[in-house]
Amino acid sequence: MYRTKTCGELRAANIGETVVLSGWVQKSRELGGMTFVDLRDRYGITQLVFDENKNAALCEEAKKLGREFVIQIEGKVVERSSKNPKMDTGDIEIIVSKLTVLNTSEIPPFTIQDDTDGGDDLRMKYRYLDLRRQCVRKNLELRHKMAFEVRSYLDKQGFLEVETPVLIGSTPEGARDFVVPSRMNPGQFYALPQSPQTLKQLLMVAGFDRYFQIVKCFRDEDLRADRQPEFTQIDCEMSFVEQEDIITLFEGMAKHLFKTIRNIDITEAFPRMTWHDAMKYYGSDKPDLRFDMKFVELMDVLKGYGFGVFDNAEYIGGICAKGAATYTRKQLDQLTEFVKRPQIGAKGMVYARVEADGNVKSSVDKFYSQDVLQKMKAAFNAEPGDLILILSGDDTMKTRKQLCELRLEVANQLGLRDKDKFACLWVIDFPMYEWSEEEGRLMAMHHPFTSPKPEDIPLLDTDPASVRANAYDMVINGVEVGGGSIRIHDSQLQAKIFKILGFTPEKAQEQFGFLMNAFKYGAPPHGGLAYGLDRWVSLFAGLDSIRDCIAFPKNNSGRDVMLDAPSAIDQKQLDELFLDIKEIEK
Amino acid sequence: MYRTKTCGELRAANIGETVVLSGWVQKSRELGGMTFVDLRDRYGITQLVFDENKNAALCEEAKKLGREFVIQIEGKVVERSSKNPKMDTGDIEIIVSKLTVLNTSEIPPFTIQDDTDGGDDLRMKYRYLDLRRQCVRKNLELRHKMAFEVRSYLDKQGFLEVETPVLIGSTPEGARDFVVPSRMNPGQFYALPQSPQTLKQLLMVAGFDRYFQIVKCFRDEDLRADRQPEFTQIDCEMSFVEQEDIITLFEGMAKHLFKTIRNIDITEAFPRMTWHDAMKYYGSDKPDLRFDMKFVELMDVLKGYGFGVFDNAEYIGGICAKGAATYTRKQLDQLTEFVKRPQIGAKGMVYARVEADGNVKSSVDKFYSQDVLQKMKAAFNAEPGDLILILSGDDTMKTRKQLCELRLEVANQLGLRDKDKFACLWVIDFPMYEWSEEEGRLMAMHHPFTSPKPEDIPLLDTDPASVRANAYDMVINGVEVGGGSIRIHDSQLQAKIFKILGFTPEKAQEQFGFLMNAFKYGAPPHGGLAYGLDRWVSLFAGLDSIRDCIAFPKNNSGRDVMLDAPSAIDQKQLDELFLDIKEIEK
Repeated sequence: MYRTKTCGELRAANIGETVVLSGWVQKSRELGGMTFVDLRDRYGITQLVFDENKNAALCEEAKKLGREFVIQIEGKVVERSSKNPKMDTGDIEIIVSKLTVLNTSEIPPFTIQDDTDGGDDLRMKYRYLDLRRQCVRKNLELRHKMAFEVRSYLDKQGFLEVETPVLIGSTPEGARDFVVPSRMNPGQFYALPQSPQTLKQLLMVAGFDRYFQIVKCFRDEDLRADRQPEFTQIDCEMSFVEQEDIITLFEGMAKHLFKTIRNIDITEAFPRMTWHDAMKYYGSDKPDLRFDMKFVELMDVLKGYGFGVFDNAEYIGGICAKGAATYTRKQLDQLTEFVKRPQIGAKGMVYARVEADGNVKSSVDKFYSQDVLQKMKAAFNAEPGDLILILSGDDTMKTRKQLCELRLEVANQLGLRDKDKFACLWVIDFPMYEWSEEEGRLMAMHHPFTSPKPEDIPLLDTDPASVRANAYDMVINGVEVGGGSIRIHDSQLQAKIFKILGFTPEKAQEQFGFLMNAFKYGAPPHGGLAYGLDRWVSLFAGLDSIRDCIAFPKNNSGRDVMLDAPSAIDQKQLDELFLDIKEIEK
Repeated sequence: MYRTKTCGELRAANIGETVVLSGWVQKSRELGGMTFVDLRDRYGITQLVFDENKNAALCEEAKKLGREFVIQIEGKVVERSSKNPKMDTGDIEIIVSKLTVLNTSEIPPFTIQDDTDGGDDLRMKYRYLDLRRQCVRKNLELRHKMAFEVRSYLDKQGFLEVETPVLIGSTPEGARDFVVPSRMNPGQFYALPQSPQTLKQLLMVAGFDRYFQIVKCFRDEDLRADRQPEFTQIDCEMSFVEQEDIITLFEGMAKHLFKTIRNIDITEAFPRMTWHDAMKYYGSDKPDLRFDMKFVELMDVLKGYGFGVFDNAEYIGGICAKGAATYTRKQLDQLTEFVKRPQIGAKGMVYARVEADGNVKSSVDKFYSQDVLQKMKAAFNAEPGDLILILSGDDTMKTRKQLCELRLEVANQLGLRDKDKFACLWVIDFPMYEWSEEEGRLMAMHHPFTSPKPEDIPLLDTDPASVRANAYDMVINGVEVGGGSIRIHDSQLQAKIFKILGFTPEKAQEQFGFLMNAFKYGAPPHGGLAYGLDRWVSLFAGLDSIRDCIAFPKNNSGRDVMLDAPSAIDQKQLDELFLDIKEIEK
C-alpha cells in the first residue's frame, strides 16, 4: 500500500492525522526557508510543506524534485495559514516527515495543466501526458459515467447486453469496410462491423426481445471533420414494438442521462418534427433548436419586382436575427463572404435592417418599395432592431442547406449556441431513399433494413422516392446523437427493397442471405436505434471535437501518432497470410 | 404496442384480465374440440386455449399454426383446470378471442427445446434458432448479469472504464496478431490487440489510477481445445499498489460475483499456493481443489528394490483415491490406457489396493514386501478401501503433468468434480521465465512487463531462470479465470528484461519504444490483472465449452458458419488496399 489517502480527500476534519500520499509533483516553489510542493493525483492536489528550519536535509531533497516526479510522502495534516477556497483540499497542508522518490521524470514536452502550452500534434504524440491534464481526464470520467448510466437504465428496462462478433463478413453496401485477412482461410477476409445491424436483427429473430450493446464500430472512410475510423455506438433493438414504443423508451433514457450526468430535469416530451418540416424550416435534418430563426419562404413576397436574382430563383428564403440590426457593413460583408465560400456555395446574400422607426432598409432597396419590404417584415414578424438575411438559388434543397449554414453562423456570432443549454428533438418520417448522383440510383437513407410506412407501401412500385420510412433521429443542439427505425421483418418485402436498391436476387442472397433466411423462421416485428456515444459525450462535456473524449484517438490520416500505427509488418506475417503488397507509387 | 403482458408473467392474480400477448408457437395439440397452443417468448411460456364450441372459425385458424409461427393474441386469463406446477404460468391459461399471425415460419431444421435433435454444425449454422432454446439463452443472460455486476463492483471501487483502441500496432512478441491493412497508409497494417496491456499501462502513466475495461481481444492461433479467435477480457490496472492490494480487491470482486450471481457466500480468504507447490502437489499451475488427492512423492519409499522402472526414475509419485479399491481390473487397465495415450504420454501405471484387513495388494507385488508397501500406505495416509495410483518417469515436470491428468480423470470417474461446488485459489510466485525449446531462449511466462520479486533481482544476472515474478493467477475449479502481475515501472529494469528475452535495444525500441519513453516521464508503481470473461461465465453456468456462452461463436477453423465469414472480397477492395493474394496451393 503506497498511500493511506488520495490527494483529493483531506479536509479540515483530518487535521492532526498522519497520512501517506503518493502522486506527481505538479509544481514546487521556495519561500522564506520553506519549500511548497503541489502533489497531484487523479483525485486532486494537496499542498506539501518542507521546512528548512525543522528538517534541513529533507528540505534539501525536496528542492531537487522536478515537475512530474512520482513521490511518496508521509506527513502530518495541519491547518493552512492562507486557505485556498478554490481547492477542495485548500483548508489543509501536509508537514512532510518522510519523502521517497518513486520515479523521476524528464522535463515534459509541454506543461501539464488545463491551459497547456502544447500544440495538438505534440499532445497526441505524448497522449499519456496529455491525459494527465484535468480537463482531458474529466471528459473520460464523464464518458465512463455516461456508459455506466446507459447500462443501468437499459438493464432496469430488461435489456440484455449481448456481445456480437468483431470479425464478421464484408458487406459492400454502405461505407467501406476494414478487412482482416484470415490465415486459416487463405485468400479470405473478415470485415470489422460498421455496426452490428444485421446481428442485432438476428438476435430479435432469436427471441432476445430487448438487446443492447456499447460497441466499437469501424468505417474506413476518408476522415473529414470530426470522424474516427473506430467509434463507439450504443446499439439497441427491441421486438414487438412500434415506433412510438421506441421513442418513449429512449426518450426516457435521454432524460435519465440528463438527470444523472448534468442534473437537468426534462419533464416535457421532446418535440417532434417531420424530416420534411426540418428541411423546410431549418434546411437540415438535425436542426439546432436552442434558438429560433426559423426559415421564412419569400417566393410570394419578393418575386416579380425586377430583381433578376430573385425573379429567376427556384427558392428564396431568409432568417430574422433578433436585435442584430447593429451589424456593421463590414460584418455583413463577412457574412456574405462566409456563404460564398466553396464549402457553402451561395452566390450572394441580401440583407435588410428594421430601423427604429419600423422602416426597412435593405441591400436591394432599388428593386423594392417600402411597401413590399414591409410585407417581408411582416412575414418574419420582425421588429425594430432586427436583421433579415436572405438567400436564393435555383435548387431548393441546396439553398436551404446554405441558409442553414448561415443560420448557425449568425447564431454563433450572437452567442445563441450556449453549450450549457440543451434543445432535444425527434426528427421523424424520413424518406426511405435518396438519390445518389454518384451511384446513379436510389440509396437507402438509413439502411436497407428500414421499413416503409405501411400506408406508403403501394408507392414502392409507382414512386419509390416519395416513400416515407419508419425512421427517426434524436437530435440535440443540432447534433444527431442517435437514430433508428422499425425494421422489415418480412422476407418478401425485404427482397423488394433490395430490388429497388439495385440488388439482383443473387447479389442480395450472397450478401444478406443469412438474414433473409432467418426471416423465414418466424421473425418478430422489431426495431431499434443506435446512439453515437462519442458524440453524446462530447455534447455533455461541451467539447468541439469527439477526439477529446477518446483516450487514444487517431488523426485525420487514421494514424495513432503515439503508437506509430499502422506500420509495416514482417514478411513472415505477410507470407502466412498469402499476401503481397503491390508496388506503391510515390 | 404488440402486447400488454409477456408470456412469463401471468399468475393466478391476473385471472379475469384481458391481455394481449405476442410470441412464438412452441407447440400445439388438439384435444376433444379444444386446441391448446404453448406461446413462448424470452420470459416464459403461456398456454392458449381455442375452443371449437365457442368460436369454431378461430379454432380453425389456430389449427393452421405451425411451430415457430409468430402470433399475437388477445384473450382472457382464466384458471387452469389441470395446473402445471413446473411452469411459472402453470396456474392459468388464456381463452383466446383474437388471433393475428405476425409471421409464418418454415419448419425449423431442429427442434427448439433444451434437448434438441440438432447436431452441433446445424445448430451453429442456424444459431439464431439455437439461441431460441432456453438453455442457450440462459447462458447469455448470465453473461449479461456477470458483466453488469463486474461493472457495478469496479465502479464502486473508483475504477474508470476507458475504451482503448482496437486498431493498434503489431507486436510480434506473444501470440500471432490479426492485422488490418490500412487504405490511407498503403503497405501498412494495424493489428487487433491481443490485450490492451501496454495501453492500460500508459493509462497508469497518465495518472488514471484505477482502470478497467470489458474488452474484446484477438489472437490468431490455431484453435485447439476451447479457444476462440476473439474473446472477452475483464481488463484491470491500478497504480500505487502492491500484489497484496490487488489480490484483496479482486478477491472481493470474485466474492461479489459468487454472491450476486450464484448466491454463494464465501467468507474465508481464498487459499494461496506458490507455483512451486502447485506443480509439486498437483502437477499443474491451476490445480482443481474441489477434491484432495494431493501428490505423494515416493522416491525414498520405492527406489532400490529391483523394480527397474522405479529404480531408474527421476520421479515417482502417486495419488490416493479414497474408497476406490473397488475398481475392477478392467477399469484399472482403462486408466493405464488413458495415461499411455500420446496426449499424456506415460509409459505405464502402477496401482495398489488397500484391502479390508489393511494389507496392500499392488500390481508390483513381486518387487515389494508388504513391509515396504505398508510404508507407502503410510505415506498416503491410506485406509482400507483406498486405491493408490503411481506414475514414474525420467522428467519430473512431465511426469507430474501426467499424474495431474490421471488425478483429474479419476476425480471425474468418482464424481468429485461437482459443477455446483467451487474451490477458489490464488497461485502466486510464478517464475519470471520459462525455457522455450522451440525458440531456444527464455520466454516471459506472463509477459515482458511483469516485475521480478525485488529480492530476486540480483539473480537476473546470474540465474534468470530461477527468478520469481510478482505474478498471480486466480484459479477456480482447475480453471485459470484470471491472472496478472505487478509491472515494471522503471525504464532501465524494463530494458534489462527485454535484453534477457533476447531483444536487441533497437528491436525493443522499435516495438515498445512508446512504452519505454512513457516511463521516462514519471511512471507510478502499478499492476493489474485480466479475467477471461468467457471462461468465468462458462464456469458459473456449468458449461463444458466457452462457445455456449458466446452469442455467435466461430468454429475450429475460425469460421462463422452462420455468416459464412471469412469470405473472398472484391478485387476493387484489394486494389484500394494495394494487396495481391498469392497463388494458393490446393
